[in-house]
Amino acid sequence: MEKQRTLVPFVSLAGRAQTDVPMYRQIYDEFRRGILSGKISPRSRIPSSRALADQLGVSRITVVNAYDQLFAEGYLEARVGSGTFVAGELPEELLHTASLRNLKKPRVSRPLSLSAKGTQAARDSARIVSEQSANKFIPFQNGLTALDSFPFDVWARIAARCIRYISPGDMFDGDLTGYRLLREAIATHLGSARGVRCDPEQVIVTAGTQQALSLISAVLLEADDEVWMEDPGYTSARSLFIHSRTNLVSVPVDNDGLDVNAASAVGKNPKLIYVTPSHQYPLGVTMSVARRLSLIETARSTGAWIIEDDYDSEYRYAGRPIASLQGLDDEGRVLYVGTFSKTIFPSLKLGCLVVPPDLVDVFTATRVLTGSQPPLIDQAILAEFISEGHFARHVRRMRTLYAERQRSLVEQVDRRLKGLVEMKADDAGMHLVGWLPGDLDDREVVRKAAEANIRLNSISDHCIAPYPRNGLVFGYAAFDEKKIKRGVVKIAAVLEKMA
Amino acid sequence: MEKQRTLVPFVSLAGRAQTDVPMYRQIYDEFRRGILSGKISPRSRIPSSRALADQLGVSRITVVNAYDQLFAEGYLEARVGSGTFVAGELPEELLHTASLRNLKKPRVSRPLSLSAKGTQAARDSARIVSEQSANKFIPFQNGLTALDSFPFDVWARIAARCIRYISPGDMFDGDLTGYRLLREAIATHLGSARGVRCDPEQVIVTAGTQQALSLISAVLLEADDEVWMEDPGYTSARSLFIHSRTNLVSVPVDNDGLDVNAASAVGKNPKLIYVTPSHQYPLGVTMSVARRLSLIETARSTGAWIIEDDYDSEYRYAGRPIASLQGLDDEGRVLYVGTFSKTIFPSLKLGCLVVPPDLVDVFTATRVLTGSQPPLIDQAILAEFISEGHFARHVRRMRTLYAERQRSLVEQVDRRLKGLVEMKADDAGMHLVGWLPGDLDDREVVRKAAEANIRLNSISDHCIAPYPRNGLVFGYAAFDEKKIKRGVVKIAAVLEKMA
Repeated sequence: MEKQRTLVPFVSLAGRAQTDVPMYRQIYDEFRRGILSGKISPRSRIPSSRALADQLGVSRITVVNAYDQLFAEGYLEARVGSGTFVAGELPEELLHTASLRNLKKPRVSRPLSLSAKGTQAARDSARIVSEQSANKFIPFQNGLTALDSFPFDVWARIAARCIRYISPGDMFDGDLTGYRLLREAIATHLGSARGVRCDPEQVIVTAGTQQALSLISAVLLEADDEVWMEDPGYTSARSLFIHSRTNLVSVPVDNDGLDVNAASAVGKNPKLIYVTPSHQYPLGVTMSVARRLSLIETARSTGAWIIEDDYDSEYRYAGRPIASLQGLDDEGRVLYVGTFSKTIFPSLKLGCLVVPPDLVDVFTATRVLTGSQPPLIDQAILAEFISEGHFARHVRRMRTLYAERQRSLVEQVDRRLKGLVEMKADDAGMHLVGWLPGDLDDREVVRKAAEANIRLNSISDHCIAPYPRNGLVFGYAAFDEKKIKRGVVKIAAVLEKMA
Repeated sequence: MEKQRTLVPFVSLAGRAQTDVPMYRQIYDEFRRGILSGKISPRSRIPSSRALADQLGVSRITVVNAYDQLFAEGYLEARVGSGTFVAGELPEELLHTASLRNLKKPRVSRPLSLSAKGTQAARDSARIVSEQSANKFIPFQNGLTALDSFPFDVWARIAARCIRYISPGDMFDGDLTGYRLLREAIATHLGSARGVRCDPEQVIVTAGTQQALSLISAVLLEADDEVWMEDPGYTSARSLFIHSRTNLVSVPVDNDGLDVNAASAVGKNPKLIYVTPSHQYPLGVTMSVARRLSLIETARSTGAWIIEDDYDSEYRYAGRPIASLQGLDDEGRVLYVGTFSKTIFPSLKLGCLVVPPDLVDVFTATRVLTGSQPPLIDQAILAEFISEGHFARHVRRMRTLYAERQRSLVEQVDRRLKGLVEMKADDAGMHLVGWLPGDLDDREVVRKAAEANIRLNSISDHCIAPYPRNGLVFGYAAFDEKKIKRGVVKIAAVLEKMA
């Protein structure tokens, strides 16, 4: 009791209670202010409602009301059997003030003289960083996985074993395209699950999708090269192609995927075509076979390369996953990009790139030059995790879990955002798009939602050319039913206020 | 029934069912192949699932599964009230080109059309790969550590703990420059051990030296920029600067390090100067303080950036390590590159880059764009390893061990290679140079040694301009006395044969 009281010394309303503000609100404000200012530290324990009611001389229900509000807004979190704590992950506004850089500038000012790419990256750094700040575990951050369901105990056991017993030979970078057993496991898996036709020699282990795209850029792209991209499309790919100073051609997406004919009307000479055929990001369309064949034919006739970014194909909830574009390509024009960020966890930083046989050498050399080899132990752990069957088991479990979570989201949106957000269920994926009424600015909704500690992404931010509809990208994979419900409630409040 | 059977005469799995492929998949494959090969025409009607199940003698659900898949991929379409049909919009001309034969090499030869960098990497791939093949644990491979003395048990214990207890927040890429606790540990360590002046905010965790150099190249270098490099110098840095298509200027090294005056006579407008001042690679010279000041002054007057590659500064056996160049620089012109490959183990793939405060944003953005974030768990393990004191203890032990191994090597060379190899002890490092008599081709010695299962590197291969002396680089850190002795004996045989 005594200890708890000292944790919140500032919560002392006696003598300055404002009569026109409800008591529960005053308590709420005191806590919120204390947490945001850092007076109450993240993860610190707060008094029970009974204890605080006694301390302040108010009714317990008043304190309970205040706490409920703080819960709903994410300032507090409960731990079973332990009580109530200040959240470890705090609302956006605090983080922004706390992360203000306080760096000493060089004493003498001198011209920076960056490269053209450096200048571009410097100019765009704020946007690039914001696209990647998947740094908070708050609804509806996309790109996260259900970490609480990952078998970290199994991973830890395999890790300890790999570290203790890995042979000295394996501790070096002998295989310049990646750990051999992992490349074999990947080739087998991609062959049976994705219809990718490749030998392990064509598999390059990467530190994830972005690195794969960066390697491809380095090997293939020159400034002013024409790059076709789905629009709306994956922002981080777009940023990279901008960084490579290519001529980005916006290609519309219809119900069959990237609209090849529309593209041919706009661009004539693509060097590279970037697509997400299994599950278009962010719209969720699956590219039809006819369209796939027509895309490959277009690549053949124009001499273009194709990147097939197969980012979430493991998560298909109805029907079977669709075989890869790479498997349809007889000319070796498709570079297949896969990732383990969605199936293991994002910070694992492992993925793969499958290249045509005659590009293996140049990719190997570029991988070496750019220092892109992921750590060998991590690759060995993953190879074991796959070969012992844990990978398949985990993906199966997550498929069920994510399908449930998608249902929760659609249900909550149906119930609470009627007329504000239009959302359809999807047979696949880890995210859904919710469409907004025409007059609502999706970027503004994202900003307002961030103030309520909700992370969304706007369709507008995924676009090169203006898009006819406003919409929001909801990532649902990492959030349980309760969090999804609470998140939707908050969005309802934001949208009702804006409407 | 009769009519339907004639529509799919080829779907007859009896007698050739593959036991390891699920039945639905075999049916799916047959249809897909039939449609793509044109055996089943677009818009033709296909049997009902019941009819086909009867025909094939399989359960109806098996056929339904196959049809669902074919639907999902767009091979089939349903017409209300009429049944199921092969899709009409498969472009006819493509049906015959899309063969299902397994791809080994692309069948059609097509121009590669790589970028300029890609073309360069393709041309140099053999050399680049050979520079990096530290894939064998044989004397006198350089760049290896004494793996048998590394406390893998401690590392495994910390790893298991980090994996089991790391918080969800830490499992994401929240800190876009690296795991915060590791950056703090590095800043503290570099400040006290190396005299580097930096805040943790200036520390960028890298996947090792090569990645750091690659990031620097991307941010600063344009084709044809003048890059000054120590000659002889570090081959992988040189390859990267060649890959960046810069104008490489060979700068001689004397007993004080990179000869700034000589450089100024050759190059006039350096954009970047690459140096290894603590322990010049491969000659082993330490750059004097006067030379350091003169180098910084040259950088100031020409507007150049400096890379300080501090690759092995932990291993100094006599005297004190000289404080870093970065610590002498008041203008923020030095980019400090460090690595844990020499202190932990090479395949850990962790290092650091310290940049001036006003370059933090552009490096962060470039790191994100190129997908260069190392795995967070590995960073957490290293942070713990450092903060618990294991790092300092291990480095101390290795300092003693490597000094002993150097003595063994010098002693063996003195005893067995008299008149063939001239080698001097050094106060620092993990390698030594053995100089050859003038008439012995060092590259030829390396080739002959390789036949005897000995790995050496020639001084000639480290040079841009022809070098007056032939020599060999011996890495000794990874090899015990016995292996060193046996290695020297083998070299003696090779040299005596050649002499």
